[in-house]
Amino acid sequence: MPDRHDHRRLGRELDLFDTDPLIGAGLPYWLPDGAAVRHTLEEYIRTAERKAGYRHVYSPVLGKRELYEISGHWSHYSEDMFPPMDLGGEQVVLRPSLCPHHAVIYRSRSHSYRELPLRMAELGGMYRSELSGVLGGLTRVRSIHLNDAHIFCTLEQVAEEARSALEMIRRAYEDLGITAARYRLSLPGPGGKYVAAPEMWQRSTALLTDVLDRSGLVYEAVEGEAAFYGPKIDVQVTDGAGRESTLSTVQVDFHQPERFDLHYIGADGAKHRPVMVHRSIIGSVERAVAHLIEQHGGAFPAWLAPTQLAVLPLSDAERPNADAFARRCGELGLRAEIAGPERGTLGARVRESRLVPYQAVIGAKEAADDHVALRLRGGRRLDPAPADEVLARIGALTAAHSTDLWDGSPS
Amino acid sequence: MPDRHDHRRLGRELDLFDTDPLIGAGLPYWLPDGAAVRHTLEEYIRTAERKAGYRHVYSPVLGKRELYEISGHWSHYSEDMFPPMDLGGEQVVLRPSLCPHHAVIYRSRSHSYRELPLRMAELGGMYRSELSGVLGGLTRVRSIHLNDAHIFCTLEQVAEEARSALEMIRRAYEDLGITAARYRLSLPGPGGKYVAAPEMWQRSTALLTDVLDRSGLVYEAVEGEAAFYGPKIDVQVTDGAGRESTLSTVQVDFHQPERFDLHYIGADGAKHRPVMVHRSIIGSVERAVAHLIEQHGGAFPAWLAPTQLAVLPLSDAERPNADAFARRCGELGLRAEIAGPERGTLGARVRESRLVPYQAVIGAKEAADDHVALRLRGGRRLDPAPADEVLARIGALTAAHSTDLWDGSPS
Repeated sequence: MPDRHDHRRLGRELDLFDTDPLIGAGLPYWLPDGAAVRHTLEEYIRTAERKAGYRHVYSPVLGKRELYEISGHWSHYSEDMFPPMDLGGEQVVLRPSLCPHHAVIYRSRSHSYRELPLRMAELGGMYRSELSGVLGGLTRVRSIHLNDAHIFCTLEQVAEEARSALEMIRRAYEDLGITAARYRLSLPGPGGKYVAAPEMWQRSTALLTDVLDRSGLVYEAVEGEAAFYGPKIDVQVTDGAGRESTLSTVQVDFHQPERFDLHYIGADGAKHRPVMVHRSIIGSVERAVAHLIEQHGGAFPAWLAPTQLAVLPLSDAERPNADAFARRCGELGLRAEIAGPERGTLGARVRESRLVPYQAVIGAKEAADDHVALRLRGGRRLDPAPADEVLARIGALTAAHSTDLWDGSPS
Repeated sequence: MPDRHDHRRLGRELDLFDTDPLIGAGLPYWLPDGAAVRHTLEEYIRTAERKAGYRHVYSPVLGKRELYEISGHWSHYSEDMFPPMDLGGEQVVLRPSLCPHHAVIYRSRSHSYRELPLRMAELGGMYRSELSGVLGGLTRVRSIHLNDAHIFCTLEQVAEEARSALEMIRRAYEDLGITAARYRLSLPGPGGKYVAAPEMWQRSTALLTDVLDRSGLVYEAVEGEAAFYGPKIDVQVTDGAGRESTLSTVQVDFHQPERFDLHYIGADGAKHRPVMVHRSIIGSVERAVAHLIEQHGGAFPAWLAPTQLAVLPLSDAERPNADAFARRCGELGLRAEIAGPERGTLGARVRESRLVPYQAVIGAKEAADDHVALRLRGGRRLDPAPADEVLARIGALTAAHSTDLWDGSPS
């Protein structure tokens, strides 16, 4: 039986995203409603990162083959990479991850210990040459936009940075209405995909184990799930069919600082090697939105919803009031859409807007008083209230990224 | 003599962007200060577009070779394209422009005449395989992020859409402090790079000529500068050395709607062919920021500046007040940076912040009164004023995208 909340089906039905054979398998595009959700999520993460002391960069999705030879991707990961392109004798390749670019950016300037921890964030594209048979929806894709960051810090700072990344993840899940299924300490397993440096693996595993133990979180250690350059804390979520996947991650990396010969000038005036903490709060926007679609069955938290208010004038007579109300929504940054009587009876329009958090009904009485009669997603009806008050309440809850709807109660 | 305002030199000196041989020529990355300018610009454009009735999409930077065979890029433009990559027998290629993707997205759903004009916008990546010898700075690059949009509309709607795009360009230039050097009607020239359809060229040229004539703008018609699929209105700017380049553009395209067999259902119930208006308000973010750097010599309008306020505590005693003031800036979404006495004398710190629009000096007297003594970029000093009032004034001018600094006058 197909899953009722399968994100591929809902994504198409709700006009969130789609694919086209002319663009290619595993290369979804985002329709306006899906793009509104994605952009809202991206700006939410960007703001959270800025407040937590991260600074954003933009780096290109291409790099020279030599970059990945240095990082180790070429020898440990090339079967997942796109083929290199020859440009006038140079080989450039679509990147499989952002970390080498961030290492190069760190290295481009000299850094004092006073600048550490230096938190570099980017919402950037990366590419994986998955086989076309396994591609589908937003979860098996060839083009991935990752909420990524790398913290360059001292060994002593790693634990606090990892702890604070876990706290950012907890907070984001709360705002997004996501539940972590389990925490996983991902360790190397047998086989050749990992860089060989036993002492390095021991140190980074000990660090992450200590962070998890102190966090009080329940976790499991699993072999064979580490990145090729180091162990990870993975935050696992499950989809509607009970399948588990990794959404968020915190990693400790001694390997790339060594390979790129990164350093900072210590208080002693000498060069020291920083550690890189890789972390992602919501993983890729593709996987995050897929999970949000399935988790909420398309009924996104109001702050994320593509349409936040459906404005329903009872008849054409209230159309000017509906227009004015929708305009005020727009000025407050709220996404409103008018569904007038040309779209059917009020009942039909309410049903059509069933996933919209707020439906603002405007009849003759409401129009005369500058009131709206609010219906909440799920069917609850509130008493008519002044339009300004309604918008102020909804705006405040939305700005606070609340998962609750305003239910008419005073603040 | 090197240009004093050359964006490449200023970009490096001000830590706005840079390149690295390991990433590759023509593939700049943006350092945090440059990324702040770029992101602010991107959000400004996105908001302006949303208010003007555009809806945003995200589409992948890759497409199948067949997509460009249909669009005509493969036969008219392939020497500027990156080489295709083979993925399990399919050829995918980094896109040279966004229009084919938008045509495919338009085609994925049926459209009624009631939905037109349908305005689809995206700030998306595109790629050009320029020769490595000509690459440099932000103006000659292989990776371009275009502020692009395509308006699918009826023939009758073209003139009004083109007119309103020109008005959006005028308004953006005003907010950005940019001056258009001239308007150009770009027509096909002799040679084979244009699609052959004389009647189509005549119709679209007549349309754009009419728009320009009615606008009252002075313009020149220039042969050989059209897109391969149609004529354009180009808005030209000049750099510090007097070199001209195209920043903004409005184009009429009958070609791609034909090639992609686009249609809408008219009031008569029959299928009709829409026209595509391609338009860009600020062109690519690379070229736009390069031009802004040169135009302003790094002294960006306050709403765009990487650091908007430098907070200068006179001594360590005022440090807590400086911290509190910077925190209030952050809460208002203003980018503030503290430069304390460890960075030198007040004079030295003022000189170091010479490109920052506002310098908020806090001495003992100001700290006691919760005042700041504001200095404006350029040297003007205002009387100490309550911190809240200063922030409210600066916040209001910034939100309005003003190019003026608050000079202490009441609102």
